[in-house]
Amino acid sequence: MITEDLKILIDNKTKPPGSLGMLEELALQIGEILGTTSPELIQPHLVVFAADHGIANEGVSAFPQEVTRQMVLNFLNGGAAINVFCRQHDIHLQVVDAGVNYDFEPDLPLGDAKIAKGTASFLHGPAMTAAQMERCLTKGEAVVAEIEAKGCNVIGFGEMGIGNTSSAAVLMSLLCNLPMADCIGRGTGLNDQQLLRKQEILEQAVANYSGSRAVSELMTHFGGFELVEMTGAMLAAGKRNMVILVDGFIATAAFLCALQLDPQLKSKAVFCHESEEKGHRLLLTHLKAKPLLGLGLRLGEGTGCALAYPLLKSSVNFLNEMASFQSAEVSGKS
Amino acid sequence: MITEDLKILIDNKTKPPGSLGMLEELALQIGEILGTTSPELIQPHLVVFAADHGIANEGVSAFPQEVTRQMVLNFLNGGAAINVFCRQHDIHLQVVDAGVNYDFEPDLPLGDAKIAKGTASFLHGPAMTAAQMERCLTKGEAVVAEIEAKGCNVIGFGEMGIGNTSSAAVLMSLLCNLPMADCIGRGTGLNDQQLLRKQEILEQAVANYSGSRAVSELMTHFGGFELVEMTGAMLAAGKRNMVILVDGFIATAAFLCALQLDPQLKSKAVFCHESEEKGHRLLLTHLKAKPLLGLGLRLGEGTGCALAYPLLKSSVNFLNEMASFQSAEVSGKS
Repeated sequence: MITEDLKILIDNKTKPPGSLGMLEELALQIGEILGTTSPELIQPHLVVFAADHGIANEGVSAFPQEVTRQMVLNFLNGGAAINVFCRQHDIHLQVVDAGVNYDFEPDLPLGDAKIAKGTASFLHGPAMTAAQMERCLTKGEAVVAEIEAKGCNVIGFGEMGIGNTSSAAVLMSLLCNLPMADCIGRGTGLNDQQLLRKQEILEQAVANYSGSRAVSELMTHFGGFELVEMTGAMLAAGKRNMVILVDGFIATAAFLCALQLDPQLKSKAVFCHESEEKGHRLLLTHLKAKPLLGLGLRLGEGTGCALAYPLLKSSVNFLNEMASFQSAEVSGKS
Repeated sequence: MITEDLKILIDNKTKPPGSLGMLEELALQIGEILGTTSPELIQPHLVVFAADHGIANEGVSAFPQEVTRQMVLNFLNGGAAINVFCRQHDIHLQVVDAGVNYDFEPDLPLGDAKIAKGTASFLHGPAMTAAQMERCLTKGEAVVAEIEAKGCNVIGFGEMGIGNTSSAAVLMSLLCNLPMADCIGRGTGLNDQQLLRKQEILEQAVANYSGSRAVSELMTHFGGFELVEMTGAMLAAGKRNMVILVDGFIATAAFLCALQLDPQLKSKAVFCHESEEKGHRLLLTHLKAKPLLGLGLRLGEGTGCALAYPLLKSSVNFLNEMASFQSAEVSGKS
């Protein structure tokens, strides 16, 4: 009913049918999620989940682990890319400590969803316990519940965590049944030799794993605290009929996990960009997802969500503000 | 000098080098055009040139010619897509009558650069006289000069003109030496049979042409008033070191003409999107241009410029606002 009404509205705007391309699909999707033919995006939020990874100490990253903590402080000081883009588009930015290997001062404006000071390395054993994994999902949900209570109906998720492309690559490889070599990438900037070493380490980690392919067990063994909290947050946002903005490789891996737990989630998700990180394109293809932007980004932090957000607003704005052929007295196709 | 300084600034921002992808190239380009390491985009403008085409009456368009006039009034009433997107991004919209087949009321907020009430059909003869073509270039320049006088340093160009994909396709075919079939598209929505007829008419028009391949003669014979005024406007913007936003197929064809007259122009141009209109991708490839957006748009009006504009702002903002590794005390690559 809403869908048909939205389609008629969109096709009657003063433009050739379909000529606004993906913005028309987006207007339809947002109208469907919010259940109205005159949707408004209210109190947009971007949550950055940050955590450390034991696997980072096995030589899979170009940057040292302490960068996670340093970047969290950079977020709090307003100096990172995600700060700049959120300011530009009036998006509320919330940084959440999901498990950084550092004791932050208690009075910082930092969301507390800390599970532990970093995961264990998943090279020889599980990254976290099953109880920790469950706490990640619960804490991710709690973050979203609090934000929704403020009136927010559109939410994006970003991450910071040195080593987290390794978690994402293994989860992708096992959940999509794809060779590791197709799922790994240079992360923050590995050279060819380092990339090969990353692949060997991750293949070894999978060879050492004797558990099942159940998503909860895979998240427990290979997950990051920020990745699993993001999964919990996405599930919560979907349950609340919020528009979910999916960022790059790690966020899409978190979405892949969430989708196993809630197959309805895809209709709520907007895939914001195709990352330069190898594996992301293939992951999007696996999900049959059409990303809005393709700018060669590979930064994470939710930057793709923030940069794509004005396109969501444009889609809603054309739906609400453009004249129809009738109201503007413009002739249709002859 | 500026280039090197900009590169150092960009690489020292708190992100892996290159991880903001095309936004980094864009920040460099805008800094170079404006000649500063702290560029600001001032008074952004979008000019929509509108005109009618004699060729439209030969059956090359899905919409009747009167739609040009109707859409101009829709622009002036604020109801078109370009109005919505310009409002969203605080872009000044100026609509210019380059040669619509209608006498508008004199008190409308419509720029007057009218050459005549539509071109002649170029099927059997030239669309305009050589003197009219020169007046188009001059009037296009005058529009930009007036806008620059207000302090504007970034300007996009859009168009409205039923039939104008035909002009653009012929100019592309002749200037790039490409088969007509590769240059034409469905415009506002032709079906297969109508598309074939469009191709036949345009091939016939070229067969009937006995002039040279000089761009000024080609513009005279096959141009539209809006297209050639846009060419003049782009040349003027380049001469004034303004950032030029290039929209879709017709705007890119106007840019192709302008580039023949000023080979330095490319460094000033930002290609905003790849249109769904067939021919545009090939034209961008010919120009070695990397468009920012690929949303399947095919509306014209400058909508691609307006939608891409926040990305220009993002590139300038990250350059001006992000912390450096040093200032934020973040470790570099290990």
